[in-house]
Amino acid sequence: MTTTLITGISSLVTNDEAQGSGPLGLLAEAAVVLDGDRIAWVGPASRAPAADTAHDAGGRAALPGFVDSHAHLVFAGDRTAEFNARMSGQPYRAGGIRTTVAATRAATDAALDANVARLVREALLQGTTVLECKSGYGLTVEDEARALRIAARHTPETTYLGAHVVAPEYADDPAGYVDLVTGPMLDACAPHARWVDAFCERGAFDADQARAVLTAGAARGLTPRLHANQLGHGPGVRLAVELGAASADHCTHLDDADVAALASSATVATLLPGAEFSTRAAYPDARRLLDAGATVALSTDCNPGSSFTTSMPFCIAVAVREMGMTPDEAVHAATAGGARALRRTDVGRIAPGARADLVLLDAPSHVHLAYRPGVPLVSAVWRGGVREV
Amino acid sequence: MTTTLITGISSLVTNDEAQGSGPLGLLAEAAVVLDGDRIAWVGPASRAPAADTAHDAGGRAALPGFVDSHAHLVFAGDRTAEFNARMSGQPYRAGGIRTTVAATRAATDAALDANVARLVREALLQGTTVLECKSGYGLTVEDEARALRIAARHTPETTYLGAHVVAPEYADDPAGYVDLVTGPMLDACAPHARWVDAFCERGAFDADQARAVLTAGAARGLTPRLHANQLGHGPGVRLAVELGAASADHCTHLDDADVAALASSATVATLLPGAEFSTRAAYPDARRLLDAGATVALSTDCNPGSSFTTSMPFCIAVAVREMGMTPDEAVHAATAGGARALRRTDVGRIAPGARADLVLLDAPSHVHLAYRPGVPLVSAVWRGGVREV
Ligand SMILES: [Zn+2]
Ligand SMILES: [Zn+2]
Repeated sequence: MTTTLITGISSLVTNDEAQGSGPLGLLAEAAVVLDGDRIAWVGPASRAPAADTAHDAGGRAALPGFVDSHAHLVFAGDRTAEFNARMSGQPYRAGGIRTTVAATRAATDAALDANVARLVREALLQGTTVLECKSGYGLTVEDEARALRIAARHTPETTYLGAHVVAPEYADDPAGYVDLVTGPMLDACAPHARWVDAFCERGAFDADQARAVLTAGAARGLTPRLHANQLGHGPGVRLAVELGAASADHCTHLDDADVAALASSATVATLLPGAEFSTRAAYPDARRLLDAGATVALSTDCNPGSSFTTSMPFCIAVAVREMGMTPDEAVHAATAGGARALRRTDVGRIAPGARADLVLLDAPSHVHLAYRPGVPLVSAVWRGGVREV
Repeated sequence: MTTTLITGISSLVTNDEAQGSGPLGLLAEAAVVLDGDRIAWVGPASRAPAADTAHDAGGRAALPGFVDSHAHLVFAGDRTAEFNARMSGQPYRAGGIRTTVAATRAATDAALDANVARLVREALLQGTTVLECKSGYGLTVEDEARALRIAARHTPETTYLGAHVVAPEYADDPAGYVDLVTGPMLDACAPHARWVDAFCERGAFDADQARAVLTAGAARGLTPRLHANQLGHGPGVRLAVELGAASADHCTHLDDADVAALASSATVATLLPGAEFSTRAAYPDARRLLDAGATVALSTDCNPGSSFTTSMPFCIAVAVREMGMTPDEAVHAATAGGARALRRTDVGRIAPGARADLVLLDAPSHVHLAYRPGVPLVSAVWRGGVREV
């Protein structure tokens, strides 16, 4: 095991109040020592210990790798024509998510694997070192299990989302589809997944159906998370809290009871501004959630239909512009918040013992992630102690 | 002179209706031949001529380099604390633009030059091959002339903006400052500038003052452009049209007469969504301008106070999300529109005889610039026939 000293860090986000100032645990003129895949030491550059090798950050800011806790990467094809029509005010009659389901079923394993690899690499270049990945474009026993096997080659954070929409073959028998999702499909998928998820929304699955899916998954050792309250107000958030889900995702349409439920629970409110950006929908109110005391995470929701971005910096900038978050809060939500949403204590922070996931920015502070929107600022990334970018 | 054949282009934006379909002059399965610093041939890949060297675009989309016709790059320091306070709802008492003026005056030539070079390179990595650059943070005869000399090392599109704000030394004598700007400062700056600009806004320069500046500049051979109608409705747009300015920039607050004036003139409406993004201001209505028949350009307004982005792809994505532009219109405005705003016919299009400024995207179509917000998609850039990225 070699140790690496990273010095010359103008400003370091540790997300550890014991180490630096404020909720971000900011340290100025800092240094970090990596030892194998772990962080061994964090502190003022002036007191840094010796190490086998050294890297001079040259006055750049550093922060934990982004934790993107919500993404749909196992798919084939794209939906450019649908996006273009929507943004051009043109009618579009093709099948939305069904287009992606058909293309995904028709794709080879190799093609799906290459698509995941491409997007994971694209995200890594933008500082994302942990990425959750859902199934949900297969919607058969075989295709859902295949999606999760492929996802598991790229991340341990795999989520069984057979309950994304009712499969086209079950359009007239949604109850039969829920039986499939909670039965044979779950049997095939559970060995490859850490999480179970459902899309609880009018037109997808109602509260009883979503409860059945999450409960069945939990009985097989999967921890629940839930797509909730995206397109309109509904029972999703309260269901997520009731079931002790790790996260309620989207949270765009909330009433006071939803906000109070999130604030008094361990369920993270995961906000996905890329989806509102790409569908011209109203944004969730992060300020209201934060002021109530809820834990907020930011994620990309990367998918070809409603949010085809892998960029956590972009999500930070939009969250600051549109959702009432301060730059500090948005950076915290994109790192520590994502870690909370995945119930990970080893990532999302820079502290001795944590995984050596560290990003350098071509900028003197993390605020530049919002101050310099759209500019690719990530200049170096270590993941598990390995310099990847 | 060597010729280069770029083949394997899935979709090519030429901005030439004679060459392809629609206003973008789209060509599928295209090829381009570069000869020295010019484009020599454009057409279907199946009919491409031989060349000295070949580059396989691998199914990527191609488009002209972005023409960013509005940027303020000659400055020192940044305004992170001011941005952070604004976005965090905190009061901030420091000096705004005066902070940048003081830092710029105090900086060495070498420091200013390095800052311009850094930002020009950053823009190039994101596909910008032509970049206008204004003075305006010196506000003395010497400092404005110095800014333009430095800018001219990086671009021929230099703009004299002594009338950015009234210099602090003239706070009590704005008329005296206008005399300086139209007299000795103009004498010192005109040899280094192509354009003359003023900030026509309440709190900066009124219509009579802006007219005096642009008219004096025009008498010295500089062509007018004007910051107009950004913060509120005012006389700027009508003045720009009256004086035959190449561009009226911002155009955020327009009445029907302004829109009609722009639509019936050769003055381009240059929209700068980065400024509204970074100040949480309402966006200009591009749809209204386009429907009236005005020519629209998109630019970054890159500056450390109100829009610290160099990313034309980001501006395209925001223009589609917020300003009623279709992806096609936004891409056209960021290329051909910028060229019109700079009265350039050699850039902003891919056609025989045009300058060899060409961008490849890691995507099959230009629509992805809006469909994949925040993702760095630019994978190769030729500028004047030289592969720069
Ligand atoms: Zn989702
Ligand atoms: Zn400007």
